[in-house]
Amino acid sequence: MTLAELAVRLGCRLQGDGAVEVFRVAAIDDAGPGDLTFLSNPKYASRLPSTRASAAIVHDDSADAPCPTLRTRNPYVALANAIGVLTPPRQPASGISPLASIDPTASVGPDVTIGPFAVIGASARIGARTVVHPHAVIGAETTVGEACVIHAHVSIRDGLAIGNRVVIQDAAVIGSDGFGFARRDDGTHQKIPQVGGIIIEDDVEIGAHTAVDRPAIGVTRIGAGTKIDNLVQVAHGVKIGRHALLAAQSGIAGSTTLGDHVILAGQTGVAGHLKIGDGVKVNAKSAVFSDVRAGAHVAGVPAVDVETWRKAAVLAERLPALRRAIADLEARLRVIETRLMT
Amino acid sequence: MTLAELAVRLGCRLQGDGAVEVFRVAAIDDAGPGDLTFLSNPKYASRLPSTRASAAIVHDDSADAPCPTLRTRNPYVALANAIGVLTPPRQPASGISPLASIDPTASVGPDVTIGPFAVIGASARIGARTVVHPHAVIGAETTVGEACVIHAHVSIRDGLAIGNRVVIQDAAVIGSDGFGFARRDDGTHQKIPQVGGIIIEDDVEIGAHTAVDRPAIGVTRIGAGTKIDNLVQVAHGVKIGRHALLAAQSGIAGSTTLGDHVILAGQTGVAGHLKIGDGVKVNAKSAVFSDVRAGAHVAGVPAVDVETWRKAAVLAERLPALRRAIADLEARLRVIETRLMT
Amino acid sequence: MTLAELAVRLGCRLQGDGAVEVFRVAAIDDAGPGDLTFLSNPKYASRLPSTRASAAIVHDDSADAPCPTLRTRNPYVALANAIGVLTPPRQPASGISPLASIDPTASVGPDVTIGPFAVIGASARIGARTVVHPHAVIGAETTVGEACVIHAHVSIRDGLAIGNRVVIQDAAVIGSDGFGFARRDDGTHQKIPQVGGIIIEDDVEIGAHTAVDRPAIGVTRIGAGTKIDNLVQVAHGVKIGRHALLAAQSGIAGSTTLGDHVILAGQTGVAGHLKIGDGVKVNAKSAVFSDVRAGAHVAGVPAVDVETWRKAAVLAERLPALRRAIADLEARLRVIETRLMT
Repeated sequence: MTLAELAVRLGCRLQGDGAVEVFRVAAIDDAGPGDLTFLSNPKYASRLPSTRASAAIVHDDSADAPCPTLRTRNPYVALANAIGVLTPPRQPASGISPLASIDPTASVGPDVTIGPFAVIGASARIGARTVVHPHAVIGAETTVGEACVIHAHVSIRDGLAIGNRVVIQDAAVIGSDGFGFARRDDGTHQKIPQVGGIIIEDDVEIGAHTAVDRPAIGVTRIGAGTKIDNLVQVAHGVKIGRHALLAAQSGIAGSTTLGDHVILAGQTGVAGHLKIGDGVKVNAKSAVFSDVRAGAHVAGVPAVDVETWRKAAVLAERLPALRRAIADLEARLRVIETRLMT
Repeated sequence: MTLAELAVRLGCRLQGDGAVEVFRVAAIDDAGPGDLTFLSNPKYASRLPSTRASAAIVHDDSADAPCPTLRTRNPYVALANAIGVLTPPRQPASGISPLASIDPTASVGPDVTIGPFAVIGASARIGARTVVHPHAVIGAETTVGEACVIHAHVSIRDGLAIGNRVVIQDAAVIGSDGFGFARRDDGTHQKIPQVGGIIIEDDVEIGAHTAVDRPAIGVTRIGAGTKIDNLVQVAHGVKIGRHALLAAQSGIAGSTTLGDHVILAGQTGVAGHLKIGDGVKVNAKSAVFSDVRAGAHVAGVPAVDVETWRKAAVLAERLPALRRAIADLEARLRVIETRLMT
Repeated sequence: MTLAELAVRLGCRLQGDGAVEVFRVAAIDDAGPGDLTFLSNPKYASRLPSTRASAAIVHDDSADAPCPTLRTRNPYVALANAIGVLTPPRQPASGISPLASIDPTASVGPDVTIGPFAVIGASARIGARTVVHPHAVIGAETTVGEACVIHAHVSIRDGLAIGNRVVIQDAAVIGSDGFGFARRDDGTHQKIPQVGGIIIEDDVEIGAHTAVDRPAIGVTRIGAGTKIDNLVQVAHGVKIGRHALLAAQSGIAGSTTLGDHVILAGQTGVAGHLKIGDGVKVNAKSAVFSDVRAGAHVAGVPAVDVETWRKAAVLAERLPALRRAIADLEARLRVIETRLMT
């Protein structure tokens, strides 16, 4: 594709020769002739002059490059679009595999793709243009919206509601039973039937091996535009706001509410029955054990304000030095005490 | 169902009008006419007077409510029973799907349900009334007891023993190879064949994406009544006692033994070759690196007695203040030293 | 098998009666007549004199035993070989199941085993002697080498390259989309298509529920001989060297590079865009937030040199005592100040 065409497709301003052709996107150091590269992080600006790429996506205000450039206010979004245009993901063969098991009472919209050995339960509804990969299982009376992508080995249990343009990566489980047991007087545990619902709103993405549990009562809800990475635990009755980001191996215990635009970094945990305000950020490997006010940035176990955590983390390393300082003070004080006593 | 009938079913004492009808269970603040609510946590007692529910499950000693009540010594167990009576989970279509692959040498008990694309291996045995959901794979010579529920995409490898009334949530793996390698003299690693067994006793529940590894030698064992949440790692040769609770994303390294009634909170870890006594509780996000005596309650990394941890965690935040206190002492001492020297 | 035969098979030196027969391998305390036991950890040497085993694998320099011995420089490797000889893992029925779905354009090598309901995509290539268990899904244009074992419910997406003798445990996902989103000016997120590749070199093992993400650009790579445990996150664009060991529930964020022979213990995390040198060891439950030089051994959150961490961890428990020491110094200093002032 010529750079001139691509500029139009991406809504970028072209600077330089629009007749140049590009075929794929490559990182600054790896790019060669025919490649389109990009500069979205100013930290790497010093490498642009030496790139061998045929063209580059850069910020409006970026310095001149050794190649033609596509200029935009948001180079990272332009990059996302460029990859979609130049190297779109492979699509599975369209149509409904004769090897799928689709209940006769299920409703399947137009232009739906269903792979071999997928199972669609009784009275389930699959919206138009949705792709169900091989081995996905969609339960009875569950609704999946339009233009969704349900990857291989996904389980979606019965009676749940999935919005439009939702992407669910391989082997995720939506609707596993919440971990709810009533302790009997003899110390054994009785299962509380987990028969509540799950609502996953539009434009949500859910990672591989992520589990979203259904509750006993009420619903578990994931707000529109929220993106969840791999191996994440979303327990029963959790409510997540809109446009939140949950990185890999994070976990949220039962009945906790997260606001809009919350960011949980990797391997974080949030305890149960808490309220985490809009825009809260939790640093990697931290654990939140109490409510967090909107806009806060926290870290540590238990998580505290990130500045407090940083100071304490630095000092934790200096604890041996602090102990030596105390021992030194004690020795000096003893000298003085002895002297004053005599 | 009338409250009078429900009182009999749940073994509760009815207080008020037994002719009232209830149709589902709802939380105190969400409940409306036709709903049965509950008060199992005294913390929420102040909300009961304003509930709009038609009836409530409460503790024997609970104050009067604005609606008829079902009274019991253990409201949480009554709640579990009430949900089971009023809104039982959907059951899959019974019978054996013609799309399942069942080895002719496998033995399948009476009233077993097997979903499409399930695979039952040679000489496997499935007990009466067990439900095998679509896409579950049960290996050769493995025994699954009576009245179990094996959810979709579960893998149970060959030669293992699963008890009665065991519930395994979607995509759990029972019998993956333990992580056992012998280091060769050149620094590469040779796989140790993991050919040991796994015994899962009666009434165990295992969460979605939980992995229970088989060992090279001997067995991995999970005691009766133990409940394991999602995304948990149970390594090769681990022995877990009876009625333990393991919350999501916890992990136990190889050959460790956990006693009865142990509780591991979310995202905890226990190192290998340890002995954790009966009734031990490990706080969330903690890691146990040494043996723990029965009855102990521990927290932190490495985990120590919870009271010690609490004091240290509070002080960790105050480290900057401690450092300032030391600097202040030093300055004052220097003044005195100077004065005494002159 | 007689001990004399086994000595030849394992390349060990026989000491004692070679006519003794052994049938399985058992731990020192569990072994009885007919069992071969082993002593690979000198810590357990005191138990050898009382073993009831018929024979034992021991180190060349080990003391005499009450039974015949097989002597070697590396008893742990001999143990691995002995288990393979005496109790080899069950093999699935060989051949290609008529219930598998194999695209007519796929290429399947000689002596390949494919289980029921496995799916092999268009133009995929499966090397000789590879075993594909039931329900594994191998994407279009993906290559799997020779003598691999792909367990049940594994997803390998399209266009990826898997080497020879690679073992992938149940339900692992290779090629899920990296967690890459471009933030739009309104705070919502646009998916960056993840169309890069994955290269898994020879002799790699990947655990149950482990996810290896594909990147938007370039490749994710796992070096030859590296072994990865269960529930591990390998994010997009990560490069792992040769013969590394990643224990369960560890996670590596995007674009980080690990050297050869790196060891990540259980529940560790490594942040994105870092360089971790050859031979680095990270203790359990630690999180690495900056580059680590080759050969370092680190621990803690954030991870520091293990000796520094050990001292700080010990002192963290003693923080209350340190605070009391400071308070005591203050009181004594006040006494002196008062006295000097008067």
